[in-house]
Amino acid sequence: MTKPTSMKLYGFWRSIATYRVRVALRLKGVDFEEISIDLLAGAQFAPDYETINPAHAVPALVDNDLTLRQSLAIMEYLDERFPSPALLPELLADRAYIRALALDTIADAHPLVVPRVRKHLAQAFGADAEAAEEWARHWIELGLQTFEKALAQRPPSPFVMGEAPGLGDICIMSHLVAAQLFKAPLGDVPHLKRLRATCDEVEAFTASHPLKQAGAPAV
Amino acid sequence: MTKPTSMKLYGFWRSIATYRVRVALRLKGVDFEEISIDLLAGAQFAPDYETINPAHAVPALVDNDLTLRQSLAIMEYLDERFPSPALLPELLADRAYIRALALDTIADAHPLVVPRVRKHLAQAFGADAEAAEEWARHWIELGLQTFEKALAQRPPSPFVMGEAPGLGDICIMSHLVAAQLFKAPLGDVPHLKRLRATCDEVEAFTASHPLKQAGAPAV
Repeated sequence: MTKPTSMKLYGFWRSIATYRVRVALRLKGVDFEEISIDLLAGAQFAPDYETINPAHAVPALVDNDLTLRQSLAIMEYLDERFPSPALLPELLADRAYIRALALDTIADAHPLVVPRVRKHLAQAFGADAEAAEEWARHWIELGLQTFEKALAQRPPSPFVMGEAPGLGDICIMSHLVAAQLFKAPLGDVPHLKRLRATCDEVEAFTASHPLKQAGAPAV
Repeated sequence: MTKPTSMKLYGFWRSIATYRVRVALRLKGVDFEEISIDLLAGAQFAPDYETINPAHAVPALVDNDLTLRQSLAIMEYLDERFPSPALLPELLADRAYIRALALDTIADAHPLVVPRVRKHLAQAFGADAEAAEEWARHWIELGLQTFEKALAQRPPSPFVMGEAPGLGDICIMSHLVAAQLFKAPLGDVPHLKRLRATCDEVEAFTASHPLKQAGAPAV
């Protein structure tokens, strides 16, 4: 299948899930235009956007007449639509290993730190901004420990699945980016730090970083 | 590939993620033995179990010398290992649609209601059991609304993807089971209620229900 000239990515500079899809699109060499949905201003609740994503979340990816949502579903789609370079390995056991790593942040840690959760902590428990960020750091640190233990059992060389970056690297890097944004201390995580240094050499990762996007504060 | 005589499923009667894998195994016709990891008693933190799942969570599935974790990664694995009957549809667009539905609960709603989160709400904000359950109901209700909107756009007939149950049905049913366990009101969700009635005719779903497992309280 030929690569289309452009896809439309609805995202937000700070969104960790949008970061994942940005990296995947760049690794695949797919051109895209990003449209900002300002999560902090509530733009995800605008009626026009609800037709794009009834879950009021970013990212959403539009590929011709198809609208996709949920970062992992989008990345799996991109991998099936444009098989090379592959984001997932070939062996069933390896695919399951990589998907489990992906879900360690996508299904365990990241859902606990998104804006709607921090907002609801304030409403339900009167959490101030500092308490909500402390809450976020707790889950991010737990995720860092899980990743470090997993990578210690099966060290990256240099990427999680060998010579090329893929879904595992994208998801672990997204967790490290979240740690950076929430100023969570990394602690003693040598495998994670080595993997980050490796990914930081790849433009798909650096160009997709939240702080490099339009709308991000100058640092 | 022939189906093995037995797989080992580490789970817990109340675990919604374990429920998903139970249903998937039964739909595939794969025999399994379930070993209970008592999440309420902290058995997931035992050193022996950490080698099985460094994330201290259930489910984990052991297939010969391979140990798998994360419910979605396990279901994708089962679908690749035993292609028939399929849990995912064939068309790329349909696969992305089903995976997005799966993640609406696996990555958005369910991570917010698990025991470790309710426990941390108590530690961080002094939430009592009732406040923690109210928190859980909030996210479950939001998920119900997302699912109802998605199914209204593309009504099940009778299952999410046609004549046979698959990954979409499993994940939506797991959300409805969570709603039941947390006594969350379903509200006006005609598509969800119809889908539940359809799935309730299928033994893979009924036999896998948390309240039917060893260790569950009599109701």
